[in-house]
Amino acid sequence: MPRKLEPLEGNMLIAQSGGPTIVINQSLVGAIQEAKHHGAIHKIFGALHGIQGILDEEFINLGRESDRTLEDVAITPSSMLGSVRKKPTPEDCKQIFEVLRKYDVRYFFYIGGNDSAETTHIINQQARANRYQFRCFHICKTIDNDLRENDHTPGFGSGARFVASAFMGDNLDNRALLGVKINVVMGRHAGFLTAASALARVYPDDGPHLIYLPERAFSIPRFIADAKRVVAEHGRCVIAVSEGIADSKGTPIVSKFAAGKEVDSHGNIQLSGTGALGDLLAAEIRRRTKIKRVRADTFGYLQRSFAGVYSEVDAREAREVGRMAVRFAVREWADGSVAIKRKPGRTYQAYYVRVALSKVAKETRHMPDAYINAAGNYVTQAFIDYARPLTGPLPKIGRFKGYPVKKQ
Amino acid sequence: MPRKLEPLEGNMLIAQSGGPTIVINQSLVGAIQEAKHHGAIHKIFGALHGIQGILDEEFINLGRESDRTLEDVAITPSSMLGSVRKKPTPEDCKQIFEVLRKYDVRYFFYIGGNDSAETTHIINQQARANRYQFRCFHICKTIDNDLRENDHTPGFGSGARFVASAFMGDNLDNRALLGVKINVVMGRHAGFLTAASALARVYPDDGPHLIYLPERAFSIPRFIADAKRVVAEHGRCVIAVSEGIADSKGTPIVSKFAAGKEVDSHGNIQLSGTGALGDLLAAEIRRRTKIKRVRADTFGYLQRSFAGVYSEVDAREAREVGRMAVRFAVREWADGSVAIKRKPGRTYQAYYVRVALSKVAKETRHMPDAYINAAGNYVTQAFIDYARPLTGPLPKIGRFKGYPVKKQ
Repeated sequence: MPRKLEPLEGNMLIAQSGGPTIVINQSLVGAIQEAKHHGAIHKIFGALHGIQGILDEEFINLGRESDRTLEDVAITPSSMLGSVRKKPTPEDCKQIFEVLRKYDVRYFFYIGGNDSAETTHIINQQARANRYQFRCFHICKTIDNDLRENDHTPGFGSGARFVASAFMGDNLDNRALLGVKINVVMGRHAGFLTAASALARVYPDDGPHLIYLPERAFSIPRFIADAKRVVAEHGRCVIAVSEGIADSKGTPIVSKFAAGKEVDSHGNIQLSGTGALGDLLAAEIRRRTKIKRVRADTFGYLQRSFAGVYSEVDAREAREVGRMAVRFAVREWADGSVAIKRKPGRTYQAYYVRVALSKVAKETRHMPDAYINAAGNYVTQAFIDYARPLTGPLPKIGRFKGYPVKKQ
Repeated sequence: MPRKLEPLEGNMLIAQSGGPTIVINQSLVGAIQEAKHHGAIHKIFGALHGIQGILDEEFINLGRESDRTLEDVAITPSSMLGSVRKKPTPEDCKQIFEVLRKYDVRYFFYIGGNDSAETTHIINQQARANRYQFRCFHICKTIDNDLRENDHTPGFGSGARFVASAFMGDNLDNRALLGVKINVVMGRHAGFLTAASALARVYPDDGPHLIYLPERAFSIPRFIADAKRVVAEHGRCVIAVSEGIADSKGTPIVSKFAAGKEVDSHGNIQLSGTGALGDLLAAEIRRRTKIKRVRADTFGYLQRSFAGVYSEVDAREAREVGRMAVRFAVREWADGSVAIKRKPGRTYQAYYVRVALSKVAKETRHMPDAYINAAGNYVTQAFIDYARPLTGPLPKIGRFKGYPVKKQ
C-alpha cells in the first residue's frame, strides 16, 4: 500500500553507474521529462561519472536541455552522464551527504545494477541517519538481468536481441564453413544473456547446439564430449558460453588459466574485454579431438552498446522505469527501487512497482532451475517463452527447400 | 566493347566460396532470378560448399525454388549453399571438368573473393584447353573490399556499417567508463574495413582516435606513444586495429606471439576466431604505461554475418552483380568477373562492367595512399567521402549540451 507523501521542495540529482546499456539513457530521459512536470522539483542536476561526480561536484544542469536533445540522447547507447565502478567508503558517504545538502538535493536517482542499488542504499541510510528530508531511488538497469525482485531489467531485452541476432548470423556462418564455433557471452553470475542465444534457433538443426551457464558447474571433459556428440550428429557445432562459467568449486574457468586479473572495488574480477576464455576452450577442443576447424569469438562490449540494435519493448520500458521512479518519489515513497513485473497471461504485459532498496542491493538473481535443461547444457522451452517477448521480432531467416539432384 | 554472343544452350551451376557476407545470398538470388528469364539456360544447379560440392556432385535444384523462398534467402546472412576454402589441385580441376561435362553445365558462376576468382580462372582454363563450350563467371564478394578492378565489393558496405555502428556504441562505452579500448577488425592485407571505423565519429572528440592498417608497418613503441598522447588529450582512447597489421618486414604482429597457427590451402594463416592480437596489444599498453583500464575486443565473425545489420545500398548492388553476371554470360562474354565501378560526380552512382578473370584473381587491392594520413595512424577525409555512401545512413547519436553548474 503506497504511502501518500507530501511533495518535498528542492533540487534533484541523477547519475548513472556500472556497465552501460543501449537503453540506459531512456531511463535518464524518462526521469528528467517526468521531473519537469512536478513543481516541487526545482533544478535537475546530472552528476558526471556516478558518485565520483558527486564527490567532485561535477554537475550539469539537465533542466535546461531541450526536448529535442532529450529525445536524441534517449536513443543513444551508453551512459550519457558517464559511469563509474566505485563502492563508496564511509568517508565518501559523509562527503556525498555534505554535497547533497549543499546543493539542496531532495531527490536523488541512481541508475544502475545491483552494485549501484547497494550504493543508493548506503547513501539513503546516511541521509536517514542525519534526519535529512530526502527521496532516494534506484533505477534498475543491467543487460545481465540479474536484479532480484524484477521479472527482467531494462537493457536485457536489447542485449538479448543482440546476442540472438549474432547467433542467427553466426549459426549460418558455421553452417557454411563447418567445424566448431564457440561464442563467449557476458554474464558473470547469471546466464540469462547467454541463454538468449537459444532465441536464434529457427530450424531444428540450427545452433546454438550447446549453452553453458554460470548456474551449472562447468566440466571440460563433459564440454568436449558434448561437442563431439553434436559434431557427429550435425557435422558442426555452435556453442554459447557465459564468461562467468565456473567449476564445481565455484572457481571461474578463465581465472584458472589467467593469473593476476584486475579486480574492481566491488570485488569483481575482469571477465570482459579479453578473448582469453574463448581461446582457452577452443584450444582444449583442438587438443582433445580431431575436429579441424575450431573458432572462438568473444562478443565483449558490443553486446551492451552496439548502435542501432535495440529492442523497442526494452526501450519503452526503460523510459517508463525512469518516469515511475520520479512519480513514486514525489508522491508515494521516500525511497526504493523501481522493479518491472509481468502480468500473468498469454499476452505479454509489464507493470512497475516500488521495492525496498535492501531487496535489490548487492545480491544477484540467477536463472531459475526451470529455465535450464537436466543435462545443464541448454535452456528449456519455459526460458524461450519468458525471453521471446523481450527482444522484439527478430530478423527473418530463410532457407532453400533444397530439391535434390540425382547423381549421374 | 562487348562481343555479341549467341546464347549457349545447357544447364547452369552456381556455388559460393570463401568467407560469407551478409549480402552474398543477394548475388546468388540475383543470378537465379535472372537465369529464369533466359530460355537458353535449362536447369539451375547449386553446388554445396563450393568446388567441394562439385567434386562430390552434391547439387540441389535451384530452379524449382519459389520466388518467396528466393526472397527470404536473399535477406539471410551467410552463404546459403555452404562455402569452402579450397584451391583446386590439377587433379581436382580435371575431375571438376568431368562433372561439368557430365551434367551438361554450360554456365558456371562462382561467388567469392580473390581466391575464388583464381579458382574460377583455373576451371575456365581447363574448359578452354578441352575446347568445351562454356560460360564462366566470377561474382565478386568480400567484406575486405580488396578485389582489384572494383571501386568496392558487395559485402563491404554492410561490413563497414557493422564496424561503424560498433564503434559508435563502443566510443560511448569508453566515454562513460574511460581508459583505453582496442578493437580488432577483420582485414588480412587491406585496411578498408578497419578504416570504416572512422565513419563512427560524430563529434570531434569521438573515437576511434587511432586507426592502424595492414598497409603501414606497425611499431609497438609508436602505438604506445600514440595511445599515451590521446589519453593525455581526451582522458581516454579508442583504437581500431586491423587483424593483419604487420611489422616493417611484413611479419604479422599476431604471428610473432602465437606459434603453430593454422594455414589454409591458399597459404593464409588464421587471424580471426581468436582474441590473441587484441589481448597482446592490451597487455603491451598495461605493461608500458600507467593507464589503468585497458580493454580489447575482437569483432570476429560477427562483422560478416550479424543478422539484421546490413547496408541497403550494398544489398541492392549485390543482387545486381548476380543479375549482371548472368546477363553478361548469356549474350556478351564467355568469361569474366563482374566489377562495380562508380560514376564520377557528387551524387553516388554505381555501374557494372565485365573484367577479365586474370585481373581480379589472386592478388589483392590495398588502401590507396590518399586514404591514409601521413602519420599512418588514421584515415583521410578522402576515405570518409569514399566510404560514406556505401553503408547507408548510420544510427543517430545525441549528446547533452551540458549546461554547467557552478561549484558551491
